[in-house]
Amino acid sequence: MTQFINKKETLVTDAIDGLLASAGGSLRRLDGYPHIKVVCRADWDKSQVALISGGGSGHEPAHAGFVGRGMLTAAVCGEVFASPSVDAVLAALLAVTGPAGCLLIVKNYTGDRLNFGLAAERARALGLKVSMVVVGDDIALPDLPQPRGVAGTLFVHKIAGAMAEQGAPLEDICKAAQNAIERMATIGMSLDTCTVPGAQKEDRIATGMAELGLGIHGEPGVQQVAFGDARNAMDMVLDKLAPRIGEEPHVAILNNLGATTPLEMSVLTHVLTTSAKAKNIKHIIGPAPLMTSLDMHGFSLSVLPVDETILPHLGYRVDMPAWPGMQTISAPAVIALPDGLSPVQPTASDNDQTRRLVAHACDLLIASEAELNALDAKSGDGDTGSTLATAARDLKGALDRLPLADPAQLFRALSNELSQTMGGSSGVILAIFFGAAGDAAAKGLPPAKALVSGLERISEVGGATKGDRTMIDALEPALHALNEGIAAAATAARKGASETASIGQAKAGRASYVPEENLIGHNDPGAEAVARLFEGLATLA
Amino acid sequence: MTQFINKKETLVTDAIDGLLASAGGSLRRLDGYPHIKVVCRADWDKSQVALISGGGSGHEPAHAGFVGRGMLTAAVCGEVFASPSVDAVLAALLAVTGPAGCLLIVKNYTGDRLNFGLAAERARALGLKVSMVVVGDDIALPDLPQPRGVAGTLFVHKIAGAMAEQGAPLEDICKAAQNAIERMATIGMSLDTCTVPGAQKEDRIATGMAELGLGIHGEPGVQQVAFGDARNAMDMVLDKLAPRIGEEPHVAILNNLGATTPLEMSVLTHVLTTSAKAKNIKHIIGPAPLMTSLDMHGFSLSVLPVDETILPHLGYRVDMPAWPGMQTISAPAVIALPDGLSPVQPTASDNDQTRRLVAHACDLLIASEAELNALDAKSGDGDTGSTLATAARDLKGALDRLPLADPAQLFRALSNELSQTMGGSSGVILAIFFGAAGDAAAKGLPPAKALVSGLERISEVGGATKGDRTMIDALEPALHALNEGIAAAATAARKGASETASIGQAKAGRASYVPEENLIGHNDPGAEAVARLFEGLATLA
Repeated sequence: MTQFINKKETLVTDAIDGLLASAGGSLRRLDGYPHIKVVCRADWDKSQVALISGGGSGHEPAHAGFVGRGMLTAAVCGEVFASPSVDAVLAALLAVTGPAGCLLIVKNYTGDRLNFGLAAERARALGLKVSMVVVGDDIALPDLPQPRGVAGTLFVHKIAGAMAEQGAPLEDICKAAQNAIERMATIGMSLDTCTVPGAQKEDRIATGMAELGLGIHGEPGVQQVAFGDARNAMDMVLDKLAPRIGEEPHVAILNNLGATTPLEMSVLTHVLTTSAKAKNIKHIIGPAPLMTSLDMHGFSLSVLPVDETILPHLGYRVDMPAWPGMQTISAPAVIALPDGLSPVQPTASDNDQTRRLVAHACDLLIASEAELNALDAKSGDGDTGSTLATAARDLKGALDRLPLADPAQLFRALSNELSQTMGGSSGVILAIFFGAAGDAAAKGLPPAKALVSGLERISEVGGATKGDRTMIDALEPALHALNEGIAAAATAARKGASETASIGQAKAGRASYVPEENLIGHNDPGAEAVARLFEGLATLA
Repeated sequence: MTQFINKKETLVTDAIDGLLASAGGSLRRLDGYPHIKVVCRADWDKSQVALISGGGSGHEPAHAGFVGRGMLTAAVCGEVFASPSVDAVLAALLAVTGPAGCLLIVKNYTGDRLNFGLAAERARALGLKVSMVVVGDDIALPDLPQPRGVAGTLFVHKIAGAMAEQGAPLEDICKAAQNAIERMATIGMSLDTCTVPGAQKEDRIATGMAELGLGIHGEPGVQQVAFGDARNAMDMVLDKLAPRIGEEPHVAILNNLGATTPLEMSVLTHVLTTSAKAKNIKHIIGPAPLMTSLDMHGFSLSVLPVDETILPHLGYRVDMPAWPGMQTISAPAVIALPDGLSPVQPTASDNDQTRRLVAHACDLLIASEAELNALDAKSGDGDTGSTLATAARDLKGALDRLPLADPAQLFRALSNELSQTMGGSSGVILAIFFGAAGDAAAKGLPPAKALVSGLERISEVGGATKGDRTMIDALEPALHALNEGIAAAATAARKGASETASIGQAKAGRASYVPEENLIGHNDPGAEAVARLFEGLATLA
């Protein structure tokens, strides 16, 4: 499995250096690579209680991503899924602990407990005031005496962080952290295992199955379950948490375990926030990757009952981009659709000359159906003739309700008709053409000039200009010649259409994917249609 | 491929509802599901220029995640990888456009250009002031006349968003957006394709290969290249961007295309910020998932030259959790290691009785090596005896440098010696035991009471209490009986050790993985060692 790393040996130090480089100077690290990997707040003055967390890497943004004002003072990073050494933790303790003391926030794994524990002892022997709390929020195995520490650890970081930032003493912080630890619960579900750098990915979970009650180090889940859909998955997770959710309001952490897409995480948010089983979950942190397990395709849900004391700590504003903030869950608010979506039907009006012109144009396109289809078959899917003829037939049938006496209104009406009756990109492009022409005419431009405005707009929106082998190659010269009369316009259109036969590279539309040899020698069907239209209209004049 | 969705048909609407539910009331949506999927700012009062973006879904957090004060006013969401309809865009335009007008920010795909373009025309016909810019920042094919719009779109959202928030007129915003569009460039690299919901994942990229110059809709990259490591990958990307990076300072967007782990993204940040090819990139947005392609395992890098006018717009503070902010790139700052990491060597001192006690204890453990190993083999890896004997031999050799006359110093010295000479968890636990005892003795507690403090600390750190089948089962009764003399302590230790033979479930340490039938009938080797130690010391008294 290829990954964006340099080598396994420098993976964690490379990643820490990357984090530091992009943190705007807000983070520093202790010397001592590769053994000592400690990320510290750059603005730390030891005036408050210091908070240190950490453990094995592979859970990013935890823990280094949460170092900053209002959360951690320092993070001690081990190698991937491996506890940092006693020396590394001690170095962090010595670097950041001031007279107010330090709280170590440790996830419940033997290695972390022991290494953080001994470092705390060493620091105490040197006169520092150090406390330690151990988070064991995983309820996958309900009667396990040593539950694992997982995403609920973030509750502790946040509560302790807000309290420390506001000057609370170590004892109070420790008590609040311990209180939260005793009341929180987390469970995870995953559709795939994680890829440990340098190791083969274990193919443990069959398609259609999910693991429920998993850890964050690739260890198997407590059970495999059949995966139905997102709602069903969330309900299974909520059923596990149910014994831990009381009647008081709760905060949830919806954690992306790594490779779940933002789209899926939002779907999971939807099923969580609309589940009757989650009615007492009133606030949410995430969805976001917070305590990941490398690239695991899964999520975890943590819950904590809250009161008016704890809630402000969880909502306390911090600046780390990895922290998504806490929000009160609300039902999606829906705004009524605005007026104006259905085009206003113009008042029909008549004008003999315009009626004959439009009808004749329609007849010309209807008559050209087969030939234009044949031409399109050389470079496309052979339907240009039919697309135009169908729209022309519909338009002829609509003549009686068109505002034929008012050019601006007529252009706009043509825009609406064509967008409804003519399929594909061409329909939209012609609708834009006539819409913009209508806009220009309404501002007082004469019809020929208004049509030039329409041309400019389709060039802008569609991205094609003259020479790109589109209908613009005929339309542009025709419209520019129109002030010299319809005959001049027809000549110009024909010349432009003929020139497309020598353009071997279309720069827009479907023909841009067609090789040169299929294009050379044939007119672009759109340009040809325009030429035929002007030529036909010239005979009418 | 299983995914956390309900069904394909409701994927996007479910996700939008999830986003809204977790946005703290800051977002609303227009009515009109499933055809009209428009997310709007809840606090919008039409007093400034409105900004609308959107397109197919599957690129989250773009675009709905960037709706909010200082960025987008509304996002129009299509189905996955499909353009939204003209009606949906028009609904958004009608809902949010006030007298200051609206800018449509469109990625360069035919469907988006046409549907947004026609909607703009319709809105203009209804009297609204609407402009449109088209972003085509992808340089994968350098001579493509219609480059795709990818992550550089975020530059436009951010610049236009900051300007609109500060009251700039539509014309100025449009000009600044256009200017940025002309100067930006993006290229992506991926190690795997994305999984389109409901479709089979294409297995296009062999292990060890990468695609360079890819789009965000699963379309193949312009070339496949051999993947070396992260640095080499970033250099290939920078080589492609080189013609577009001038001498002025640049801002980069480092975009996670979906399933790249935070660890990898940080490594990519490291190689980017330390590459000579990127010396003119002075500021960074990310690394973060900004314009994703579902679960693609890849990244993209976008660059934009900046001056003092644009930079504050890009740095303008916004509250959407999906926006990571812009930071000035800085070399990682390193703090010197603190003093105190190397334990201070205590001043040696002598005390005959203590010397005999320690030496005898060591001899007892050395003599018990084989028997304790045999006992451990019943429930563990059979090395308890050797671990203790090795540490005991080392300790005997260190007697002359120990502070034997000062109990507090001696306990601390024992802690240091054992943590250095005794492997595994046991070494750390005993180091904590003696460390905490030294701490207590230094505070004035008599040695026996100080050792009880040590016991409490290892129980707290290790998580084991009496009855968990550990050495605590003998140590705790022994220490509590010590005030009645060493003989009473020995009796208590023996009783505690014997009781472990009937504990069928270890609750801590490696024996917790061993089945009951392997435990019953055998003393825990740690408890047995403690009992032998006290019994032996009692004979000395």
